[in-house]
Amino acid sequence: MYFSKSFIPILKNNPAEAKIKSHQLMLRVGMIKQSSAGIYSWLPLGFKIMKKIEQIVREEQDRVGAQEILMPTIQSSEIWKESGRYEDYGEEMLRIKDRQNREMLYGPTNEELVTEIFRSSVKSYKSLPQLLYHIQWKFRDELRPRFGIMRCREFYMKDAYSFDLTDDDAFFSYNKFFLSYLRTFKRLNLSAIPMAADTGPIGGNLSHEFIILADTGESKIYTDKRIFEVESETTIIEKSSLSNLRKEFENFYSVTDEKFNKDEFEKSVPEEFRLNTKGIEVGHIFYFGDKYSKPLNTAVDFNGNKEFVKMGSYGIGVSRLVGAIIEAKYNDKNGIMKWPISVSPYDCAIIPMINKNDTSNLEKSNNIFEYLKSKNIDAIIDDTDENISAKIKKFNLIGIPYQIIIGNKSEGDLFEFKEIDGEPQKLNIEEIASQISKAKLN
Amino acid sequence: MYFSKSFIPILKNNPAEAKIKSHQLMLRVGMIKQSSAGIYSWLPLGFKIMKKIEQIVREEQDRVGAQEILMPTIQSSEIWKESGRYEDYGEEMLRIKDRQNREMLYGPTNEELVTEIFRSSVKSYKSLPQLLYHIQWKFRDELRPRFGIMRCREFYMKDAYSFDLTDDDAFFSYNKFFLSYLRTFKRLNLSAIPMAADTGPIGGNLSHEFIILADTGESKIYTDKRIFEVESETTIIEKSSLSNLRKEFENFYSVTDEKFNKDEFEKSVPEEFRLNTKGIEVGHIFYFGDKYSKPLNTAVDFNGNKEFVKMGSYGIGVSRLVGAIIEAKYNDKNGIMKWPISVSPYDCAIIPMINKNDTSNLEKSNNIFEYLKSKNIDAIIDDTDENISAKIKKFNLIGIPYQIIIGNKSEGDLFEFKEIDGEPQKLNIEEIASQISKAKLN
Repeated sequence: MYFSKSFIPILKNNPAEAKIKSHQLMLRVGMIKQSSAGIYSWLPLGFKIMKKIEQIVREEQDRVGAQEILMPTIQSSEIWKESGRYEDYGEEMLRIKDRQNREMLYGPTNEELVTEIFRSSVKSYKSLPQLLYHIQWKFRDELRPRFGIMRCREFYMKDAYSFDLTDDDAFFSYNKFFLSYLRTFKRLNLSAIPMAADTGPIGGNLSHEFIILADTGESKIYTDKRIFEVESETTIIEKSSLSNLRKEFENFYSVTDEKFNKDEFEKSVPEEFRLNTKGIEVGHIFYFGDKYSKPLNTAVDFNGNKEFVKMGSYGIGVSRLVGAIIEAKYNDKNGIMKWPISVSPYDCAIIPMINKNDTSNLEKSNNIFEYLKSKNIDAIIDDTDENISAKIKKFNLIGIPYQIIIGNKSEGDLFEFKEIDGEPQKLNIEEIASQISKAKLN
Repeated sequence: MYFSKSFIPILKNNPAEAKIKSHQLMLRVGMIKQSSAGIYSWLPLGFKIMKKIEQIVREEQDRVGAQEILMPTIQSSEIWKESGRYEDYGEEMLRIKDRQNREMLYGPTNEELVTEIFRSSVKSYKSLPQLLYHIQWKFRDELRPRFGIMRCREFYMKDAYSFDLTDDDAFFSYNKFFLSYLRTFKRLNLSAIPMAADTGPIGGNLSHEFIILADTGESKIYTDKRIFEVESETTIIEKSSLSNLRKEFENFYSVTDEKFNKDEFEKSVPEEFRLNTKGIEVGHIFYFGDKYSKPLNTAVDFNGNKEFVKMGSYGIGVSRLVGAIIEAKYNDKNGIMKWPISVSPYDCAIIPMINKNDTSNLEKSNNIFEYLKSKNIDAIIDDTDENISAKIKKFNLIGIPYQIIIGNKSEGDLFEFKEIDGEPQKLNIEEIASQISKAKLN
């Protein structure tokens, strides 16, 4: 792909309206464009990143045995009246009247709808557990949308739902998602810590938020630094293995603001391990038993008895993660963003110095591009006539993790190659491809 | 995947409310579930098929150089007032007031929004052409939604938009999509014919509908049978090659109802070639010049002059295609559906006869499953205790194109293998895998 042909509208300066660095960067390099308050269009660069995140989220849901479905964005108010949440939800719910004057709404979450699907499909406990998820646009009519896609109105979310016969089975399902979340965030190169959390309008009494540390975060967190050492590598999808993993995390004090208790914090965390900072919520899981299955009369037959199913729900903010990764990985002091290669819009940027009447560097770039392509490495060539330092500055912001710079100094078969925040090396194209491929595998 | 673990809620009988065969089948085999009038949830089977169709549509957009973006579902009314369509659109547009009492709407199409993105991003003719597309949910508040997902309210659509400097360039873009549509429908194993069509609320004076023949279609069509012989295999992405392709099609009379003229039809089509039947619209492309760019003041600089860009738009109904393929491929007389392998939810069904206290057939199935998996063939095992003829009947409706039947008669290394509508053969597993792989490659 040539940069000149791509739809990447770069701004010269940070837009004044953006207050946090993810919002600034996303507008600056043309990842998104606001269409109205708290509502954004995703342009090719941002879209590619979000799609790669979505695919990682999907694979890690599938890996714990969840099945993908897709519920609509517009729901009838009827099931929300059955559950009792229609009034509760307040003004954040976007309420709509259709042409027949029926009360509809744009789903902010899907507990009711998925329960309705389950109750009309599953009759026997033998079909349990069922883990269903979908990745769909949601709408929450925030009074004051801000921070770009971090607190917007229309957002892209993965939400999963589990259905089990007993509490014990349901905790097993809960723990599967617990593990799948750790795996997901690891593949995104984020350290997300699970923290005991309030359940809010979803309900129930067991809940964890997954939080990544960031100064710009909206959640205050209190944790024991040793929690970062807990490893999930050896955990398998089996009851006791999963339950041990959760215990290992829960050994360490780790809560959000609403659950904070100063005495407890100081009693259970030695001073040198105390961490009191801010974070961004990227995932939230809930166990709420029969809170929805009971009012929605959703039960299975178990030896002749009607048992209300035990449910949990499990959310990941897919669009929000794009911003969260920027908050974690963008150094706005030196103007360098670095996407994890797993979600980077391209694997490598080819940045030639282009002189008028001399197409030799562009030709070299084309050859490099074709070679990388043959190795399954996706590159973009900056074929514009900007000067080389402006190009590098631009690509430092775009954040593709590898750069090949083709200046006048390039000699024979060797090219200047660097990781975006590293030292330049002189390498031949085979060595370059092998370094990038290795990084992609990890 | 075991059938007993999958979320595929099969109905015993055709649901009474469904009038056409795609709607009947989709409910019957648990592909979709209605959530309210004209609004459906996609269950795993239907979802997998829709995703595969979406991916083919995407690849064929990318292949002609279109770039993917994603616009939101909820739009502000302002740009629709600029274009003049806010009032025109009538009651099919779902109008919404948000909590601040701002007039919003659920996008039925995106000409205005994409034009707004373009005008704030592109300033010079040197950045043209631009071909942008997105695949997003749309809403049209049909007065009488019917026929399941064929005429529903919330539907999934690919819509692309082209921006060019001159009419001539714009026709080149139009023809790129013309070719990409032929390629897309071919990969879906559909014969879709391009037909001169009315432009309706989109506007402009050049338009083609892509129609597949089906008795249950809502469009009346009049065409010359010889149009089915036109080949696009050798066409390349080049002005004259594309223009010749369109001419070849336009040599034959082929129109929808609104454009029909009896005298012309009879004059230009010899009697033996006349075809007067019904069809389903699966794609629609439009050229409308500066209809939107002018009122939305969207121009590029060309040698110091301000030139309004010339635009076209190009739609494919992704969710509708699921139903359209059923209408084309489902024989409701013998109860056999056959998905094209390119979009089938699984490549192969493994159907063992399972006797109580004898797990040998299930073990064989597991071995076959693992072998096929190693060859990249995705299979599902029917591990339920239904009798074998009920299982086969069920899988004939589900429509996976290949079946391996493991009855009591299976001997040694040979298994009963058949294409769903073909004759059974006795083959070993290597031969079976090789037949399926071959079909997947075509």
